Amino acid sequence: MTTRRILGIDPGSRQTGIGIIDTDGRHTQHIFSTCLRLGDAAFPERLGTIFTELTRIIREYQPIEMAIESVFVSNNAASALKLGQARGAAICAGVISGLPVAEYSPKEVKQATVGKGGADKTQVQHMVKLLLGLQGRLQADTADALAVALCHAHASHLNNRLARQIPPTPTLPRKG
Amino acid sequence: MTTRRILGIDPGSRQTGIGIIDTDGRHTQHIFSTCLRLGDAAFPERLGTIFTELTRIIREYQPIEMAIESVFVSNNAASALKLGQARGAAICAGVISGLPVAEYSPKEVKQATVGKGGADKTQVQHMVKLLLGLQGRLQADTADALAVALCHAHASHLNNRLARQIPPTPTLPRKG
Repeated sequence: MTTRRILGIDPGSRQTGIGIIDTDGRHTQHIFSTCLRLGDAAFPERLGTIFTELTRIIREYQPIEMAIESVFVSNNAASALKLGQARGAAICAGVISGLPVAEYSPKEVKQATVGKGGADKTQVQHMVKLLLGLQGRLQADTADALAVALCHAHASHLNNRLARQIPPTPTLPRKG
Repeated sequence: MTTRRILGIDPGSRQTGIGIIDTDGRHTQHIFSTCLRLGDAAFPERLGTIFTELTRIIREYQPIEMAIESVFVSNNAASALKLGQARGAAICAGVISGLPVAEYSPKEVKQATVGKGGADKTQVQHMVKLLLGLQGRLQADTADALAVALCHAHASHLNNRLARQIPPTPTLPRKG
């Protein structure tokens, strides 16, 4: 069975979670994870850091796919703009490195890790640690990045299985 | 008088305006301008195009500073997120190329080009053409990109003059 390396990102303008896992469709393995702390630098510099650090990590670990959580934007347009800029920097790093970028809703990520779309953050963190056999405390953004990577592993495995199992719909002869 | 080359950007997820001018503090000259039409490609690809095209243009024309208009976000958080992602891609391209990035409000841009903060879009386009001696129709986003570059030329010229004219505040002997 071929192993695929997946990069998951939880972007933010103050902290950006990064997680990399390997999956062969049945088993997943934690390869690398970190949280970029972007601190109080000027905004353009923080975006530059997201881009360069991610590009460096992609070059080092060579993932072949990238997954990112789609965001629920409430009515706070100012924070949506800030978050958008951080997402833009992260997505750019993936696209420039040649990775296909998949997006999953928070509900899909929770469904894939905990088994129900209404799970809370701590349950997701708990399951990420369990599924990847991680010990000790896991930073929240790092856990979210690993969770979206796991969600992508799960979704693409399902798609592959469906593609193998379901034959193309036969064309029925028309009644005439 | 030294000439500085300034890159102005008006980012958007469908169209991104790009303008480059030279200024020696008194005179400004149009060097290059274009509008990237990002069409209906997948969103990550569009961000990638903004980044790669801008990086290519920076490498070709070698501006030394970048200016971008700050955005007024109304209460549409979904479009603020999209715009934010396009801005993030554009700012990244500037920062990665080593350019300092300055931000100006729409009011400052209008003040610098038309002379009043409440001017409308067509007045700004008219003045951009006049100030840079451009003929024919000028695409709206391209005009906005050139306008923010002109605003930066103006603002940095003023700052330089102020720095030269106003001597440091003398330290008065304390009464005691």
